[in-house]
Amino acid sequence: MSKTVVVRNIEQPAQDAVDALEKYGVSTVHEAQGRIGLLASYMRPIYPGASIAGAAVTVSLPPGDNLMIHVAVEVCKPGNILVVAPTSPCTDGYFGELLATSLRAHGVKGLVIEAGVRDVRPLTEMKFPVWSRAVHSQGTVKATLGSVNLPITCAGAQIDPGDVIVADDDGVVVVRRSAAREVAAASEQRVAKEDKARERLAKGELGLDMYGLREKVKQLGLEYR
Amino acid sequence: MSKTVVVRNIEQPAQDAVDALEKYGVSTVHEAQGRIGLLASYMRPIYPGASIAGAAVTVSLPPGDNLMIHVAVEVCKPGNILVVAPTSPCTDGYFGELLATSLRAHGVKGLVIEAGVRDVRPLTEMKFPVWSRAVHSQGTVKATLGSVNLPITCAGAQIDPGDVIVADDDGVVVVRRSAAREVAAASEQRVAKEDKARERLAKGELGLDMYGLREKVKQLGLEYR
Amino acid sequence: MSKTVVVRNIEQPAQDAVDALEKYGVSTVHEAQGRIGLLASYMRPIYPGASIAGAAVTVSLPPGDNLMIHVAVEVCKPGNILVVAPTSPCTDGYFGELLATSLRAHGVKGLVIEAGVRDVRPLTEMKFPVWSRAVHSQGTVKATLGSVNLPITCAGAQIDPGDVIVADDDGVVVVRRSAAREVAAASEQRVAKEDKARERLAKGELGLDMYGLREKVKQLGLEYR
Amino acid sequence: MSKTVVVRNIEQPAQDAVDALEKYGVSTVHEAQGRIGLLASYMRPIYPGASIAGAAVTVSLPPGDNLMIHVAVEVCKPGNILVVAPTSPCTDGYFGELLATSLRAHGVKGLVIEAGVRDVRPLTEMKFPVWSRAVHSQGTVKATLGSVNLPITCAGAQIDPGDVIVADDDGVVVVRRSAAREVAAASEQRVAKEDKARERLAKGELGLDMYGLREKVKQLGLEYR
Amino acid sequence: MSKTVVVRNIEQPAQDAVDALEKYGVSTVHEAQGRIGLLASYMRPIYPGASIAGAAVTVSLPPGDNLMIHVAVEVCKPGNILVVAPTSPCTDGYFGELLATSLRAHGVKGLVIEAGVRDVRPLTEMKFPVWSRAVHSQGTVKATLGSVNLPITCAGAQIDPGDVIVADDDGVVVVRRSAAREVAAASEQRVAKEDKARERLAKGELGLDMYGLREKVKQLGLEYR
Amino acid sequence: MSKTVVVRNIEQPAQDAVDALEKYGVSTVHEAQGRIGLLASYMRPIYPGASIAGAAVTVSLPPGDNLMIHVAVEVCKPGNILVVAPTSPCTDGYFGELLATSLRAHGVKGLVIEAGVRDVRPLTEMKFPVWSRAVHSQGTVKATLGSVNLPITCAGAQIDPGDVIVADDDGVVVVRRSAAREVAAASEQRVAKEDKARERLAKGELGLDMYGLREKVKQLGLEYR
Repeated sequence: MSKTVVVRNIEQPAQDAVDALEKYGVSTVHEAQGRIGLLASYMRPIYPGASIAGAAVTVSLPPGDNLMIHVAVEVCKPGNILVVAPTSPCTDGYFGELLATSLRAHGVKGLVIEAGVRDVRPLTEMKFPVWSRAVHSQGTVKATLGSVNLPITCAGAQIDPGDVIVADDDGVVVVRRSAAREVAAASEQRVAKEDKARERLAKGELGLDMYGLREKVKQLGLEYR
Repeated sequence: MSKTVVVRNIEQPAQDAVDALEKYGVSTVHEAQGRIGLLASYMRPIYPGASIAGAAVTVSLPPGDNLMIHVAVEVCKPGNILVVAPTSPCTDGYFGELLATSLRAHGVKGLVIEAGVRDVRPLTEMKFPVWSRAVHSQGTVKATLGSVNLPITCAGAQIDPGDVIVADDDGVVVVRRSAAREVAAASEQRVAKEDKARERLAKGELGLDMYGLREKVKQLGLEYR
Repeated sequence: MSKTVVVRNIEQPAQDAVDALEKYGVSTVHEAQGRIGLLASYMRPIYPGASIAGAAVTVSLPPGDNLMIHVAVEVCKPGNILVVAPTSPCTDGYFGELLATSLRAHGVKGLVIEAGVRDVRPLTEMKFPVWSRAVHSQGTVKATLGSVNLPITCAGAQIDPGDVIVADDDGVVVVRRSAAREVAAASEQRVAKEDKARERLAKGELGLDMYGLREKVKQLGLEYR
Repeated sequence: MSKTVVVRNIEQPAQDAVDALEKYGVSTVHEAQGRIGLLASYMRPIYPGASIAGAAVTVSLPPGDNLMIHVAVEVCKPGNILVVAPTSPCTDGYFGELLATSLRAHGVKGLVIEAGVRDVRPLTEMKFPVWSRAVHSQGTVKATLGSVNLPITCAGAQIDPGDVIVADDDGVVVVRRSAAREVAAASEQRVAKEDKARERLAKGELGLDMYGLREKVKQLGLEYR
Repeated sequence: MSKTVVVRNIEQPAQDAVDALEKYGVSTVHEAQGRIGLLASYMRPIYPGASIAGAAVTVSLPPGDNLMIHVAVEVCKPGNILVVAPTSPCTDGYFGELLATSLRAHGVKGLVIEAGVRDVRPLTEMKFPVWSRAVHSQGTVKATLGSVNLPITCAGAQIDPGDVIVADDDGVVVVRRSAAREVAAASEQRVAKEDKARERLAKGELGLDMYGLREKVKQLGLEYR
Repeated sequence: MSKTVVVRNIEQPAQDAVDALEKYGVSTVHEAQGRIGLLASYMRPIYPGASIAGAAVTVSLPPGDNLMIHVAVEVCKPGNILVVAPTSPCTDGYFGELLATSLRAHGVKGLVIEAGVRDVRPLTEMKFPVWSRAVHSQGTVKATLGSVNLPITCAGAQIDPGDVIVADDDGVVVVRRSAAREVAAASEQRVAKEDKARERLAKGELGLDMYGLREKVKQLGLEYR
């Protein structure tokens, strides 16, 4: 049944894989791992330009109650990303500048929250990146338990503690901890391939020819007039 | 029944309270007054960084008809904020650069409108802040009456003429005119308290300890693994 | 019935009219042509400040399948704007930096897509403007045909190939190819008129007087208190 | 500031006015009182055909917490309608068959809730009408206070305790307690007028003639072809 | 530019084609004409079970203003369906029982409106079918012109006067007047084909075999475990 | 990476547990298992009154492409419920009467689909229950692979093949296969408890007293006036 549990220690992903995934970014990583793991497109950054990757510390909590975020800070490790999902849809501002100060003091790189956030201006100034569903000043209470570091569903994606979160202007994607190195390698290959494609496309070559699609559209019966 | 009335003179809030509320911003003020008065989170600024407070001049008008905004300009006082709500949901662009020019000439600090706005680029360049539900070029007619300076509901909040509107990147909150000084004082206390909290959190102290939550989660039965 | 056709050559609008419409921008053009042709307000630019106009190359394609964008590149002419609409609602990221590189190599000025886009950061850095319904990393397949340069409905507006698309921070509007010069002229007149109005409003004159509305609200029965 | 208060006794509206308003229904009453007081159109009945009116017992409560509904039952009088609004948007199922059984035992006629409801089948079978924003099984906790019988904003409308709620398949409208008789009388007149109009329209007479609109459209410049 | 015009006489589609299309229903007709012409899925019937077809009388009107519906009644012919779209998004209740009485007196079969409707209970009782975006008691004014029987865009579909509208529980589809007979014939063939398919599927035959998909999934590389 | 796999045989849950869960319904089961496993509230039945439970056959497929539903029919067992989720948001009508005929021939009890459905009238008449995100005639192609009987996320809930789906007018909930008997037992206990509560509440006893909440609200500081 529903657990009110905190798991203190989780397995961390390989740091080199995390670093690589951060470099490649959401769209490349998502493609490289076979188009899985993407969070819903309503998860948007509060300011443009941030781009991070890190191991997920997962938090499940009730609507309008951020007690468990305070609990979660203690088990965060440097380089982690806090991932928070309410048990039912809520746009309350669970998180602001003080919690960001606290998380930063513990080395946390950013927040992904399927709810609201506030103090957008101070958060932008201190460059603490947040991907959220809403900006909302509406505060929360601290009355009810939830869980930390159990598997959660956030914005339509299954996230296990220790999975790698990659987040940038394109959104948020999750990579299974066990697949992090493999996906990093696949991302690298994809980027190399895209570098070559970019060069050819910039010279005016058509994707229709480069990707061998001209024959395909002919077979499918495309008519030119 | 439904009135087509303009109230020329409204009681203005204390200027020192307005100045203080502008300084503290939406999230602090909203908390300080007991988490009431917040407008819906779909009210967003058209550009980041604006932060204002002022007495509300309230406008109720029909969907797709901005005649009453033109009427309202005349009764605005320097330092006021125009607050506009259609009688039924509408995203039309009721407001643009010309009306902003007119309002500015009369000392109005900004606009809060539960509808659409246009001329976003010129408004941004002239730094006339607007919080709206949508950006939409769709213009309006000038055919039907409404009211100015009667109580309205805007984005889910009750707003009386002369109430203080506080608006920044976090959204919009309304403070009753009669409570403005009290809320300003409560905001000041809150900020002072948060300054101390920030300092401790920045050093790594846990909110769990600082707010005395460790005992609470224990009593509620939180299990650590 | 539903066609899988590519029309290679379309009639282009007069270049002087396109240049003028680009200068006047969406809200002015929309007003000048009698408030028609506006796309839905959910079509938003991926970065602020872009402002373009050009002849539409229209693409109709299935949800989750961008094969026809690759087909469309070949028939684009310098100065064109690609306009893409899926046959049913879809927020997939049909378009990213590689396709932008290809379109730019062929002189295309930007993209309007009633769906998702990705690679927002690179697109912003290379200043390739996109107006879209969503930002979404979710990729697409290349399996099914659609059409290029047939009439389409995009974000609620009818768009014929060769129509002029005008897009800026206020949204997107379409001008019939045959009306481009007439609308450009009407826009010019409107801007001239607004320049005079702005001057008067900036001095504090009321729109109520300037537009002759004072008599009207009196006749409609507006009560002042 | 935000109150955690229960007001035990509220002034009840005139019973004859309530009975009349129930008979006339939402659309007639809304028109008769000058098109004010309508709740947002997302408030829908859980089954078709219910049509009630009664004095509002108002409840403000936190997201995901229905403690105050239990508190409110005690102060309800026969013929009342419970009106519930969370302090921030929430679709949780605050209410089900057991609470309906309890309310019915105390004579309450129905529920209006700007949130979710569950047990839709049993509620339909016991004919306990509910107007809600959502159907959602997601339960709530009982941890935090709110208020009963203080003024609230529900679905965009200001509702004071003792105001008359009218609800049917068209939605929900609120009538000020003090205006109930006046609005009932205006509704009666409206219905009488509509009865005559219906008769003439059923015979084929045009509203254009009956309402004297033909001259108006001519003056406005309508062109017939 | 935007016209305020009423076209009195429009070409009517072949009655036998209209009758056939009514019989086949939305999903069959939509498929039979190559998956074009479908209105957005937010267009829903106010009661289940209605199924009609008829020639469109098109109305374009401002948000919150139903003057042009009154104008349109006069040009409706028996068997027509009124199709109404506001020039910008609006959920106001433009239409109720009195207008339905009037339309019925002139032989109109139903209404398709990309906005709100009210009097849902009386409309259901008199069996006047309406497909709308919302149910909303909010009334409209009669102040501003629009057009009747010019081409419009309604719920994302282009509709010309005299086109055939088909509407049932699945939604609304438009068939070009000139294509009505061809689409009716294609619908008949489709239904005949589906009758045979239904018989085989009911006996347990797999679509995988019946449609020859087994070979296709094999070629595409589907792996069975 | 993303798999195009069909798992032919999955472990089925205990039939007695499935039968019990069907009897108790969504809201009871959801509460009994600790408020987990609920699908998003936008999943609504196409007609009221259906109430089923069965083992999930899971399908992941692309937007606008229902090839994998045809593939899935073959591996369904009598009593199963088909659960379908597109890899990105889509409201296309993937499913209609013919597929329902086929599924019924193989003993499948119903469909849960995070997308659109069509043929609502025939499906209602043949009493084949569907819970969907939309009703939409828009058809799909059969061009691209997906998976059958791999774990999926559907409407925000994680669903493994063989998990028990419970669906009724309140929505849809998933019960882990391994927990089915335990949850059925907990549901039975809950129902028994509720039967007693209902009896007492029907007699007018207050939940405030029955649940021992009177003391709690006093401690929390609730003020009565």
